Amino acid sequence: MPYVNIKVTDENVTQEQKQALIAGTTQLLVDVLDKNPATTFVVIDEVSTDNWGIGFDQVTKLRQLADT
Amino acid sequence: MPYVNIKVTDENVTQEQKQALIAGTTQLLVDVLDKNPATTFVVIDEVSTDNWGIGFDQVTKLRQLADT
Amino acid sequence: MPYVNIKVTDENVTQEQKQALIAGTTQLLVDVLDKNPATTFVVIDEVSTDNWGIGFDQVTKLRQLADT
Amino acid sequence: MPYVNIKVTDENVTQEQKQALIAGTTQLLVDVLDKNPATTFVVIDEVSTDNWGIGFDQVTKLRQLADT
Amino acid sequence: MPYVNIKVTDENVTQEQKQALIAGTTQLLVDVLDKNPATTFVVIDEVSTDNWGIGFDQVTKLRQLADT
Amino acid sequence: MPYVNIKVTDENVTQEQKQALIAGTTQLLVDVLDKNPATTFVVIDEVSTDNWGIGFDQVTKLRQLADT
Repeated sequence: MPYVNIKVTDENVTQEQKQALIAGTTQLLVDVLDKNPATTFVVIDEVSTDNWGIGFDQVTKLRQLADT
Repeated sequence: MPYVNIKVTDENVTQEQKQALIAGTTQLLVDVLDKNPATTFVVIDEVSTDNWGIGFDQVTKLRQLADT
Repeated sequence: MPYVNIKVTDENVTQEQKQALIAGTTQLLVDVLDKNPATTFVVIDEVSTDNWGIGFDQVTKLRQLADT
Repeated sequence: MPYVNIKVTDENVTQEQKQALIAGTTQLLVDVLDKNPATTFVVIDEVSTDNWGIGFDQVTKLRQLADT
Repeated sequence: MPYVNIKVTDENVTQEQKQALIAGTTQLLVDVLDKNPATTFVVIDEVSTDNWGIGFDQVTKLRQLADT
Repeated sequence: MPYVNIKVTDENVTQEQKQALIAGTTQLLVDVLDKNPATTFVVIDEVSTDNWGIGFDQVTKLRQLADT
């Protein structure tokens, strides 16, 4: 009965990508630990780039620097 | 000083239901562990059904199947 | 398919208390949101009082002050 | 490689305040534990006052009482 | 810069299994979202079966019932 | 009433360092957001280096490589 929480920045993650993350993570837990998929939860959090910091800075700023 | 995080799918949870979850969880911690309600936090996360997976699939898809 | 995480300080929580927290939280989600208990997870984290802070201080210190 | 999650109520937190929380938390981990800021993540969650409970009540209600 | 938290019951997860969960999850985020593995964190929590509840009961009890 | 969760690797974090993380984080929330320290929680999780992955590998392995 695993619970997996995936946090990524909120940058246009599509339905297909979400479905792929859920299916892939669940399959990994089946393959590696023989868990039951019927009680395997995967929850995806999409976090605003304003609210995610790395190396002292908001990701919003890092994205702007990368674009210049 | 407990901290409780309740994650449910984002499907029209009302103010009254949120209040009932908060009061009920807090009362449970008072009753079972004699905790102080003044420092008992309850945080509810409402997660999009697109972002919650169970048994390889998004809950959105499971809800559609259940409706057909 | 709710997921509930209860964090309390690690101060001799008994098996019976853990069972009461799990059963009580699950019943609350059934009563308030009509959730299915078979896919309701409750995870209890017991946190060392050294690792929990409130009002600038470790709970370990607050417990010592309360005992004097 | 620390990971820090800051949950606050969603009450008009500004870009400058978010940046200050990220920079300040990262600096604290550098100062106290000599961590590498390049692999220090800070994620801020802004939680609706309807979804945060303390002392049996939603913060929304506590704010209304404080204003009266 | 994703952050993934995998919670499983604490039932003899080996080093090889942990390494497989970390590598597999990271590869999934590279494949699906083109994320940079150098800033992809995977944190595994092993939770005592006494502290994990499903369907009103501790997993400890469910395991005992399954063995009888 | 903020809640902060700090996850670091379990590598001999001292009582003094824990106290400094708690006091520093709480002060940051007072300074930046004018929060009440009496209802500011800081919870530190110390995660085994076997259970923390970055860039496909367990931190345990990265530490061994760094030492050679």
